[in-house]
Amino acid sequence: MISFDFSNVLKANIGGEFGLSPNFPDEYNEIIRKGYLKIENGRGEYPYHFMELPYEDHEEIKKYSDILGKYKNFVVVGIGGSALGAYALFNALKHQYHNLISDRRIFFIDNSDPATILNVFDVVDLKNTLFNIITKSGSTAETMSAFSLIFNILKEEGLPLNDHLVVTTDREKGDLVKIAGEYNLPTFTIPEGVGGRYSLFTPVGLLPALYMGVDLDALLEGAKDVDSYWRRTPAEENPIAVSALVNYLYHTEQARNILAMMCYKDALRGMGLWYQQLWAESLGKKYDLDSNLVETGATPVVLRGATDQHSLLQLFMEGPNDKLFVFFDVRNPDRDRRFHIGSLSKYKSLAYFDGKSSHDLITAEMSGVKYALAFNGKPNYTVSLESLDAYHLGALIYALELQTVFTSTLYNVNPFD
Amino acid sequence: MISFDFSNVLKANIGGEFGLSPNFPDEYNEIIRKGYLKIENGRGEYPYHFMELPYEDHEEIKKYSDILGKYKNFVVVGIGGSALGAYALFNALKHQYHNLISDRRIFFIDNSDPATILNVFDVVDLKNTLFNIITKSGSTAETMSAFSLIFNILKEEGLPLNDHLVVTTDREKGDLVKIAGEYNLPTFTIPEGVGGRYSLFTPVGLLPALYMGVDLDALLEGAKDVDSYWRRTPAEENPIAVSALVNYLYHTEQARNILAMMCYKDALRGMGLWYQQLWAESLGKKYDLDSNLVETGATPVVLRGATDQHSLLQLFMEGPNDKLFVFFDVRNPDRDRRFHIGSLSKYKSLAYFDGKSSHDLITAEMSGVKYALAFNGKPNYTVSLESLDAYHLGALIYALELQTVFTSTLYNVNPFD
Repeated sequence: MISFDFSNVLKANIGGEFGLSPNFPDEYNEIIRKGYLKIENGRGEYPYHFMELPYEDHEEIKKYSDILGKYKNFVVVGIGGSALGAYALFNALKHQYHNLISDRRIFFIDNSDPATILNVFDVVDLKNTLFNIITKSGSTAETMSAFSLIFNILKEEGLPLNDHLVVTTDREKGDLVKIAGEYNLPTFTIPEGVGGRYSLFTPVGLLPALYMGVDLDALLEGAKDVDSYWRRTPAEENPIAVSALVNYLYHTEQARNILAMMCYKDALRGMGLWYQQLWAESLGKKYDLDSNLVETGATPVVLRGATDQHSLLQLFMEGPNDKLFVFFDVRNPDRDRRFHIGSLSKYKSLAYFDGKSSHDLITAEMSGVKYALAFNGKPNYTVSLESLDAYHLGALIYALELQTVFTSTLYNVNPFD
Repeated sequence: MISFDFSNVLKANIGGEFGLSPNFPDEYNEIIRKGYLKIENGRGEYPYHFMELPYEDHEEIKKYSDILGKYKNFVVVGIGGSALGAYALFNALKHQYHNLISDRRIFFIDNSDPATILNVFDVVDLKNTLFNIITKSGSTAETMSAFSLIFNILKEEGLPLNDHLVVTTDREKGDLVKIAGEYNLPTFTIPEGVGGRYSLFTPVGLLPALYMGVDLDALLEGAKDVDSYWRRTPAEENPIAVSALVNYLYHTEQARNILAMMCYKDALRGMGLWYQQLWAESLGKKYDLDSNLVETGATPVVLRGATDQHSLLQLFMEGPNDKLFVFFDVRNPDRDRRFHIGSLSKYKSLAYFDGKSSHDLITAEMSGVKYALAFNGKPNYTVSLESLDAYHLGALIYALELQTVFTSTLYNVNPFD
C-alpha cells in the first residue's frame, strides 16, 4: 500500500562520498532496535496514546453525522496541529474546487490574520453554518480570539450559539471546555495523552472528516494495517524505521539541515504541511533527554512537483549540497487523460507527448529529477502511495507519526513536549 | 511606502557572536558600490531590460480590457515564473474567496499533475472561458502538454479556438508563437531580454492582472517610485541594497543556508512564492562569473505568520541556528475588527483581548517572535508595506527584483541565466 525506495541514498547510485552502504540499516542495528523497543514498551502508556487511536471506538463522532448533515458550511477554527490534519484530508480527498461544486462547503480559520477570519463571513450564510472550535489547551490565543469574534457575530445575528458552535478540546483543562459548559455547547473531547500534532485520529481530525464525507473506517483501517505491519516487522527491515534512520544520518553525519519534501501530487501538499508541523515540533529541540545541548532537527520544506522544478530545481542542482530530498507520489492517479497531438504533431515540443498521459508526464519528470539529483550526488528517497483514498491516507499519516517518534529515539529527544 | 528594519541583525540586539556592527554597510562599501555601478551601467541594456518595464507603454494590454470583460473565467496556463506573478497579485489583491463571490473567476493550471489540469474543466463553462497560455520559450513541457489538452477539448466542444485562447510568448522563438500563427490566436509578446522570472511587468503578469481588475497604472507607479528612489540613493544607505548585503553576509559568513520568509499576512504568501522562485533561480548557481565552483544560494522558505508559529517556531527557537529570518507585514490592514469580550471576560484567555483588534493581535505576535528570535541570537529583519494595494505591491515586487539582482553582484554570479 505504501512503498519506499531507498536506492538513491546508496553509494551505488549517488557515489561514495555521500552514499550509504547497501546494508546500512544493519550497521545501525543497535540504535534501531533500542528505539523500536522504546516505542513498543511505551505502547499503551502515556504519552504513546496516539498509537491506540486507530483502535478506539469513534461511534460518538459517527453518530454526529445526521446533525452535520443539516449544515451547508463547516468552519474549522484552529491553528497548527488543530487544523492541519483536517486540511490534509480535505486537500487529499476532496475536489480541488470543492467549495465551488458542493453544497457542503468547508472553510479554515487558521490564523490570527484579520482578513483570514473575516473573509469567511462574506461567503457563508450563518444560518446554515457550523463552527468547530478546536484547541487542545482550551486557551490558544489565535483560536480563542477568533472564537470571541464568532461568538459575538452569532449573538448579533440572534442565532442560538449551541446550534452553530461545536467545541473540540480537553476534557477539563482550559477555558474553552468551561465556556462550552456555561453556554451548553456540544463538545468533543481530545483524549488525555495525545498532543495536538498527534491528534488527527481524534475528533480534531475526524469530525471535520466526517462532515467532508471521508470514510472514517477506511482511514482508520489504513492506520491499523500500518500498525500491524510495524509490530510484526523487525525494525531494521521496516522502511518506516529505515526512513527515520536515513533522515537522521543525513542530518547528523552530513550536516544536511534541509529536508526537502517534494510532493508530486498537488493533493498531497496538505499532508506535507501536516508532516512539516509534526516533524518540526517533535524534533526541533535544544536539549536531549540527558539535558545535553543538541539543537536538533533538520528544517522540513514542502515543495510541489513538478511545479517547483521551475522554481527551485536550479538551486537544488547547482546550489549547496545541504539537503535530503524525500519524494512523495501516488502510483495510480485519481484522474488522468491521454495526449492526442493530432494536427499539432508537426510541432516538436508537442509531438513528444502523443499517446502518453498527463500522469505519464509528471511521473517521467519525477524520475528525471530523482536521477539527476542522484547523478549529482544528492541523496533522495521516495514514498509512494498506491492510490489517493482514505485508506492510503490513513496509512501514510500513521506511518509518518511512527517515523517521527522513531526519529526522536535516534536523536534522543522527547517528541511529545 | 516600504520600510525596512534592520535592528535585529545588529550586535546590540542579537549579541556579538552573530550580530553585525551598527555601521556594517560602510564596512562593505566597496562591494556595494561596485554592485550598484554594475547594475546602473547595465540599465537600458540586455539583460537588464526588466528595469525598463515599468516605464513602457502597456496600451496594447489595456486595450484588451473590453474583450476580457466578455469572459466569466480566466485560466492562467503557465508554470514557475509564468504563473507566480499573476498568482502573487491574485493572492494579495483579491478576496480570499474571490471565485465564490465574483462572476469573473480566475484559475491556475500551473502543474503537470493531471488533476490540477482536469479539475478546472469541472467548474468552468467553456463557452465563457478564456485560457491564457504563457511560456517564454514557447516549448515548456508542462504548459505545452496542458495546452494540447485544452486545444482538443475546445475542438471537441466545437468552440472557436481564437475565442478561447490567448497566447503570451516570445516574439519568434518556440512552437507556441508558430501555433498561434497557424490558428490565428491572439498573441502577446514578452519583450526580448526579459527572463520568465523577471516578467511580471509584461503581459505575463499584466494581462491576468487586468482581468482581475488590478489597477495597472498604480502597480507600475509603485515600481517606478522604487526605481526613482534606487537611482537617487547611495547604495550603502539604500535598504534594498542593504537587505541584499544582509542576506549575502549571513549566508557566506555564518553559513546560514535557510532564508525563512515569514509573511504575517496570508495575502502575501503568493508574493513569497514568487520571490522564492526569483531568488532560487537567480542565485542558486554552481559557478561564479569567473568560473569558480561556488554553489551559491541560501534556500528560501515561505512561511505563514502567525500560523507557522504553531508549526515551526519550536524548531526555529530551539533547533539549529542556521537561518536568517525575513519578516513581511502590512502596517495598515485591509480589514480588521475589535474584540469585545463582554460576557466572556471572566475567562482569562479571552479577557486579555478586550478592546484590542485582530490586527493588534497578529502584530503583537510578530513583535514577540522577532524579539524572542533576537534574544536567542537569531538574526532577523523586517520589510513592511504601508498597505496592501496595487501601488505597494508593484513597489515591493520591483524592490525584490532589484534586491535579487544586487545580491547576484555580491555572489558574483549571473542572475539571468
